[in-house]
Amino acid sequence: MVKVGIIGATGYAGGELVRLLSMHKEAEIKWYGSRSYIDKKYASVYQNMFQIVDAVCMDDNMEELANQVDVIFTATPQGLCASLVNEDILSKVKIIDLSADFRIKDVRVYEKWYGIEHKSPQFIPEAVYGLCEINREDVKKARLVANPGCYTTCSILTAYPLAKEGIIDMSTLIIDAKSGTSGAGRGAKVQNLFCEVNENMKAYGVATHRHTPEIEEQLGYAAGEKVVLNFTPHLVPMNRGILATEYASLKKDVTYEEVKAIYDKYYADEKFVRVLEKDVCPETKWVEGSNYVDVNFKIDERTGRIIMMGAMDNLVKGAAGQAVQNMNLMFGLKESEGLEFVPMFP
Amino acid sequence: MVKVGIIGATGYAGGELVRLLSMHKEAEIKWYGSRSYIDKKYASVYQNMFQIVDAVCMDDNMEELANQVDVIFTATPQGLCASLVNEDILSKVKIIDLSADFRIKDVRVYEKWYGIEHKSPQFIPEAVYGLCEINREDVKKARLVANPGCYTTCSILTAYPLAKEGIIDMSTLIIDAKSGTSGAGRGAKVQNLFCEVNENMKAYGVATHRHTPEIEEQLGYAAGEKVVLNFTPHLVPMNRGILATEYASLKKDVTYEEVKAIYDKYYADEKFVRVLEKDVCPETKWVEGSNYVDVNFKIDERTGRIIMMGAMDNLVKGAAGQAVQNMNLMFGLKESEGLEFVPMFP
Amino acid sequence: MVKVGIIGATGYAGGELVRLLSMHKEAEIKWYGSRSYIDKKYASVYQNMFQIVDAVCMDDNMEELANQVDVIFTATPQGLCASLVNEDILSKVKIIDLSADFRIKDVRVYEKWYGIEHKSPQFIPEAVYGLCEINREDVKKARLVANPGCYTTCSILTAYPLAKEGIIDMSTLIIDAKSGTSGAGRGAKVQNLFCEVNENMKAYGVATHRHTPEIEEQLGYAAGEKVVLNFTPHLVPMNRGILATEYASLKKDVTYEEVKAIYDKYYADEKFVRVLEKDVCPETKWVEGSNYVDVNFKIDERTGRIIMMGAMDNLVKGAAGQAVQNMNLMFGLKESEGLEFVPMFP
Amino acid sequence: MVKVGIIGATGYAGGELVRLLSMHKEAEIKWYGSRSYIDKKYASVYQNMFQIVDAVCMDDNMEELANQVDVIFTATPQGLCASLVNEDILSKVKIIDLSADFRIKDVRVYEKWYGIEHKSPQFIPEAVYGLCEINREDVKKARLVANPGCYTTCSILTAYPLAKEGIIDMSTLIIDAKSGTSGAGRGAKVQNLFCEVNENMKAYGVATHRHTPEIEEQLGYAAGEKVVLNFTPHLVPMNRGILATEYASLKKDVTYEEVKAIYDKYYADEKFVRVLEKDVCPETKWVEGSNYVDVNFKIDERTGRIIMMGAMDNLVKGAAGQAVQNMNLMFGLKESEGLEFVPMFP
Repeated sequence: MVKVGIIGATGYAGGELVRLLSMHKEAEIKWYGSRSYIDKKYASVYQNMFQIVDAVCMDDNMEELANQVDVIFTATPQGLCASLVNEDILSKVKIIDLSADFRIKDVRVYEKWYGIEHKSPQFIPEAVYGLCEINREDVKKARLVANPGCYTTCSILTAYPLAKEGIIDMSTLIIDAKSGTSGAGRGAKVQNLFCEVNENMKAYGVATHRHTPEIEEQLGYAAGEKVVLNFTPHLVPMNRGILATEYASLKKDVTYEEVKAIYDKYYADEKFVRVLEKDVCPETKWVEGSNYVDVNFKIDERTGRIIMMGAMDNLVKGAAGQAVQNMNLMFGLKESEGLEFVPMFP
Repeated sequence: MVKVGIIGATGYAGGELVRLLSMHKEAEIKWYGSRSYIDKKYASVYQNMFQIVDAVCMDDNMEELANQVDVIFTATPQGLCASLVNEDILSKVKIIDLSADFRIKDVRVYEKWYGIEHKSPQFIPEAVYGLCEINREDVKKARLVANPGCYTTCSILTAYPLAKEGIIDMSTLIIDAKSGTSGAGRGAKVQNLFCEVNENMKAYGVATHRHTPEIEEQLGYAAGEKVVLNFTPHLVPMNRGILATEYASLKKDVTYEEVKAIYDKYYADEKFVRVLEKDVCPETKWVEGSNYVDVNFKIDERTGRIIMMGAMDNLVKGAAGQAVQNMNLMFGLKESEGLEFVPMFP
Repeated sequence: MVKVGIIGATGYAGGELVRLLSMHKEAEIKWYGSRSYIDKKYASVYQNMFQIVDAVCMDDNMEELANQVDVIFTATPQGLCASLVNEDILSKVKIIDLSADFRIKDVRVYEKWYGIEHKSPQFIPEAVYGLCEINREDVKKARLVANPGCYTTCSILTAYPLAKEGIIDMSTLIIDAKSGTSGAGRGAKVQNLFCEVNENMKAYGVATHRHTPEIEEQLGYAAGEKVVLNFTPHLVPMNRGILATEYASLKKDVTYEEVKAIYDKYYADEKFVRVLEKDVCPETKWVEGSNYVDVNFKIDERTGRIIMMGAMDNLVKGAAGQAVQNMNLMFGLKESEGLEFVPMFP
Repeated sequence: MVKVGIIGATGYAGGELVRLLSMHKEAEIKWYGSRSYIDKKYASVYQNMFQIVDAVCMDDNMEELANQVDVIFTATPQGLCASLVNEDILSKVKIIDLSADFRIKDVRVYEKWYGIEHKSPQFIPEAVYGLCEINREDVKKARLVANPGCYTTCSILTAYPLAKEGIIDMSTLIIDAKSGTSGAGRGAKVQNLFCEVNENMKAYGVATHRHTPEIEEQLGYAAGEKVVLNFTPHLVPMNRGILATEYASLKKDVTYEEVKAIYDKYYADEKFVRVLEKDVCPETKWVEGSNYVDVNFKIDERTGRIIMMGAMDNLVKGAAGQAVQNMNLMFGLKESEGLEFVPMFP
């Protein structure tokens, strides 16, 4: 039984970790960390856990936690994990960081896009970018996993096979992404009130969103070249779900079957990535509550472009689900343990 | 392994049965019946099941089904199950009917409220009303279970302890219920289009809704007297969830603690009914996707009334989840098998 | 041209006042008061007003305002208007208070339910309760109008004719009301975040909601007796709209036609109250954006009760629209001036 | 007073025409055409019109209509207007066609994308494309106006100034558009049910949507070159609103101020197009219920692209509002008559 500690257990990603780990057969949550709710019953913050979780919220004491658990999940604002981690802790416990602190290899890029100083850049080199389908073997050996961002997971997996196989001109890649509102977190902000989000849609962070360099770095590894792209996130009046619509020029004429074969090459054996049938567009509702990413594509001969689409639950595969998948890999468990949920519809 | 056949597998309740049974360790779906989609791949109707269910839809042949499976779920319009069932079938297979055909003991009441002739009234006496928390022992022995309606499950469980203990004046009971739109089914009707339901709320079936006599019959058994009440359903712009707000005059002065003790008497050992803490109002979101019913109450000394509240997922405890719970009881499985989901939030 | 000042112009009710008055032919807003946004452009707070309103937000200086305008609308938290008003101000300017400060004649009731001390009880007697359809003539002569609450407007108008005519037993009256989330205001609270409200429904303020004594007082005047009732509000995942479902025992046998005649007696000549045709249930969407209240009823012979229903836009007839209607009456304008909007659907 | 006939008055665009024209001071609806609801009271189909519209629905008799009214709006499926119109009718009455029949000058393009034969191609040359801001003078003189599509209005106006001024490389233009569900019409289809759309998002018509050639033709006129582009529509869980996010490579280095000046050149005097302030992203909610289009842009120096954004109410500026704007122009009325609504928020 893997003993788990969570720092940031009362945000939406933290709450989803609690939901998933509560049903996980090989894991047990020992520490519900939440600075905002210390000493409050966890189930009074997340009433869905009533009679399921009896624990009270604890502080963010990573030193103490390292002595008590096998793995720490940090579902916290940027900068916190980097400020807490040290060699002593990492020698005792594995860390899966759901923040951005260890996702980007070039610390200057991190500091520029996030506008904060990185407090422990010495651990960046060893951190493994935990996109399981791509870095599975490295994750298994990691002490410190940087769990990918929600937009990035969906954006990368949607384009990865074509980037890897060199089919698309990476300089033309444009990612137009749409997210449910849980991605904005549980902070009390006017802009996230029901009446502000409902019946509304907008782009935000245009040309400046922090997931941009993360996508560029990972797709750059795939393509074997430096990638600079446009990424535009949008806020959608729904709780969960990310949809990425991606555009790129094809380097050469390809048929549907050829492209389908490329997707299948990378994903046919992947449980959590489903390449849909021809002309079926991914819909966020069809993956809700599950760890699946549904992907598909359409070739437009008129423009010479390919339109790639991916749909995912931002709190599961985009955050807590992938974190659990990483934990499973790191502890030699079945990769899909605790994640074999059928999507909920409607 | 219990072999399962579903008739009406492509409605919302049928789809939920498929979702739940796909994750059930002791059951296996052998027949996906759907007159509307015969020979179509089930996963093309419910894309969430892509790569999970490979089967195609079959017709509604109950005779044939009875030879192949251990239990048949009928998630079909009123009248169909009653028109198909016969002694030969019941001698071979157990039936859990999610329609109203066998819920009401007085066939004249059924025929009056539903406006159709009952085609097999001879089986009404043996049918067990499958509200597990109340009729558990009878369900275990049943060949034919009448799975309760969604509104009725929530309405009954919310008031049951107080009706049973004679604390409330049953002639004053008023049930004001609110339901998400999946309760209206997957039929293509203008009134259920997104733009008609969204940003809208209305009562419907006022004083005439068919769940009324079902609630009256069951609460009448509990109270030991004939019950006539007002039940008013409302349509709410959400997918899932029923909230029942119930009003009744107290027969005598009671304290919070006394009423709490009554609820606990009936529900403290019930896994799927959670009596919330004082002053916490049930919310549908806190039980979404799960088999829980959350209940609570408030005494109003000014008016001498008690306000009882219950929240539930209409497709789980209100339909498919309760049906699976009944199946578990009928086949001697652990009652909560395949139903131990933590509610999903947000 | 009536010169208007608004205190609290950046809440949802204040924003609706700005929307309505911007299109009003006989009124002109001179002062956009908002303590939270002083010196910010109003249109940067409510982007819908871009290129329509150029003004910046001002403070809540009622003394100064009284010298500049003909009427002040206070769309502010309870207690503020009562703390600012004085005889000098009232001698210069008319006040329409959208808070509860002057709605309740018995100051002890106000102080008990609102939990605050009333700072100017001397003005309570002269304040007119601004439910235009009931107190039209008094409103015309008023200096100080207490604009009714949202729930109360809908709840009262739905039952008023039957209370007034003595058809229903007032001791049995139960009001189960449902409201869109704009009624909760624009404050940044976790409980009003999109993800907390969406796909969710709950009762709140059960047996304790502050609109209770206001409804009791007004229906008491209508019935000519002291009224004590149950009022239960619910939060619904939609922006606008209140639906009230009300239950009462009939004092005697009445026919549909008799009750319809009673409703028509009071509302046939009222532009903003529509008594729907038989068996048509009010829906909030059919009145959205307008000043209409749609009402109807259903007699249940089985229980001897009548179910009354009313639907209304909480920000229009439930707040800003009724305030403008009051202003029109107070200044001798056409009562419907600036309010003749057709409801928006879908 | 302009006498108006509507063919297709019970679809969502037709219903919006009725809403807007009911409040128009210079127009009067004489004919509510709706094949589906002949002889039914219009207000029983759209209950918001109760006590506002007394008329019953009529058939689609354009010949008869031409004798009774000054202008006919056809808010009907593709092909109907083209099959009904003839020289005799056009000699008596002006026609504003909200379908696509006369939008595209090359009849082969129309027939290819729409898959139907055009029944009156002889009127295509004289039809004026009714995008008022661009073709104002021609609209004034027209007998037959082709009212633009919803997506196209938003897509074109968002990019028009830059296309016209030659600032962007038209071969790189990609339009990613998102629409509320009213754009899908009021037909009873499973895919448009509340439970299918709510909490869901998807692309559809990828590389094949019929608004593509319309956008290409109009932006081609602006750019003075043949334009081939990608247009991808998405379905969003909201009633109203279209958001277009558009990407193109800049032909040369430009500053924010230079691009802003270009937008202002075309839109500073346009009442219904609002160029937002720097870094303010258009949101659909800020224009809801109004005839405004809000546009803005962001230059991305990293990629050399410009991201253009536009938001609009699909039923107003995207359909009925623009149709009324066209009517105003055709009859010498004030262009904004009946359209001066402030957007409704929230």
